[in-house]
Amino acid sequence: MPISSDSTPTDATTRAALMRAARRLFAHQGYDATSVRQITREAGANLGAVTYHFGSKQALYHAVLEDALAPFASGILAAACSARPPLERAADVVGVYFELLARMPDLPFLLIQEMMARREAPTPITNALRQVSGALGDLVREGQEDGTIRGGDPLLFALSIIAQPVHLSIAAKVLAQVAGVDTHDPETRERLRAHTAAFVQAGLSRRAE
Amino acid sequence: MPISSDSTPTDATTRAALMRAARRLFAHQGYDATSVRQITREAGANLGAVTYHFGSKQALYHAVLEDALAPFASGILAAACSARPPLERAADVVGVYFELLARMPDLPFLLIQEMMARREAPTPITNALRQVSGALGDLVREGQEDGTIRGGDPLLFALSIIAQPVHLSIAAKVLAQVAGVDTHDPETRERLRAHTAAFVQAGLSRRAE
Repeated sequence: MPISSDSTPTDATTRAALMRAARRLFAHQGYDATSVRQITREAGANLGAVTYHFGSKQALYHAVLEDALAPFASGILAAACSARPPLERAADVVGVYFELLARMPDLPFLLIQEMMARREAPTPITNALRQVSGALGDLVREGQEDGTIRGGDPLLFALSIIAQPVHLSIAAKVLAQVAGVDTHDPETRERLRAHTAAFVQAGLSRRAE
Repeated sequence: MPISSDSTPTDATTRAALMRAARRLFAHQGYDATSVRQITREAGANLGAVTYHFGSKQALYHAVLEDALAPFASGILAAACSARPPLERAADVVGVYFELLARMPDLPFLLIQEMMARREAPTPITNALRQVSGALGDLVREGQEDGTIRGGDPLLFALSIIAQPVHLSIAAKVLAQVAGVDTHDPETRERLRAHTAAFVQAGLSRRAE
C-alpha cells in the first residue's frame, strides 16, 4: 500500500528536524540573524526543505512559535483558572512555568528575542501573551474581590508574577558564573521554585492578614 | 600650542561615536552578530578606527560594558547601602533602576544579550553583577536581622528585587503592543516604579507585621 507523498516517514522526520533546528537558532540568535541555509544545514536537510515544508522562513518561524507557545499558554491558563484560592493559583502558575522551562529551555529565549527586536511582535506571541496576562489579571481581580490580594492594577500584578520565573530562567548562565547556582540541578530548581512562589504570594497578598 | 595627537577634538569625537554605535549594535544584535565594519559605518568612521582607538572589537566591547555598568553598579550600591531602613532601601534600588533605564535604555539589552550568549560572560559584567548582588544580599541580611525582612536565601531575594525592573524594561515593546502600556510616558513610568517598589517591599516583608 503506497504512503501519501505528504506524510512519508522521511517527510515527517525532516519537518521535525527543521522545527528543532529553527527553534534553537531563532532562540539563540534571533529571527533576523538566522538564515534558511543555517537552519537546513543544522537539520541535515537540503536548501529547498524550508520552502517545501513551510513555504517560507517566516512561516517556519510562526510554526516554531505556535509549537512552543501552545503548551506554555495552556499550562499557565489551566493553573490560573483552577478552582483553588487565587493566591495558591499564583504559586501554581510559577510552578507550571518552572516545569515548562525544564522541558523547553529555549522558550524564554524565543520570547526575549522578540522583546528585543525593533519591530512589532508576531501574532503567535501577542496572542499567547494576551491570553496569559488576561488569565493572570482575572486571577488577581478575583483575589482582590475576596480580599486575599491587595489593591492595585491587575495587569501590573500579572507582569510581576511572570517576571520572577522569566528572569530566573534567562539569568541561569550568569547565576552559575557569579553565584555558583546551577539551575539545571533538580534540587536547586525546586528551591528556586519554592522561593519564587513564596515571593510572588507575599507580593500579592493583602498585608493586614 | 599644538594639541597632543592622542586627544585632538576629532579623536575624542570619533571615539565617542564608536562607543555610541557599538553600544547600540551590541545591545540589539549581540556581540557575535556585530561586525567592526558595521560599527565604523554607523559611527561614520573609517574601518581602521576601532583598532586605532581600542585595539580590537573585544576591547571596544569591554569599554562599552564598563561605561554602561559603572553608573548602574554605583547607583544601585549607593541606594542599597544608604542609612535608610532595609525595606525602604529596596524600594530606592527599584527607583534607581528605573531612573537609569530612562537615561540608558540600552543597558538591560546589553545584559540580556550576555545572558543569552552561549559562552562565559565577560569580566565587566560578572564584576558588576557580583557587586550588585552582594550589596542587595547584605541589605536583605540586615533586614532579616532587624526583623523587617522575612527569612530565606538573601541571594534569591536579591534576584527577585532585580527581576521586576529588568523584566518591565525588556517587556516594554510587547507591553505597548499587548496592553497599550507606553513605558516611555513619564506618568506611566512613575506608576510602574511605584507598583514595582510596592511589590518588592511586600515580597520581602515579614508577614506578621
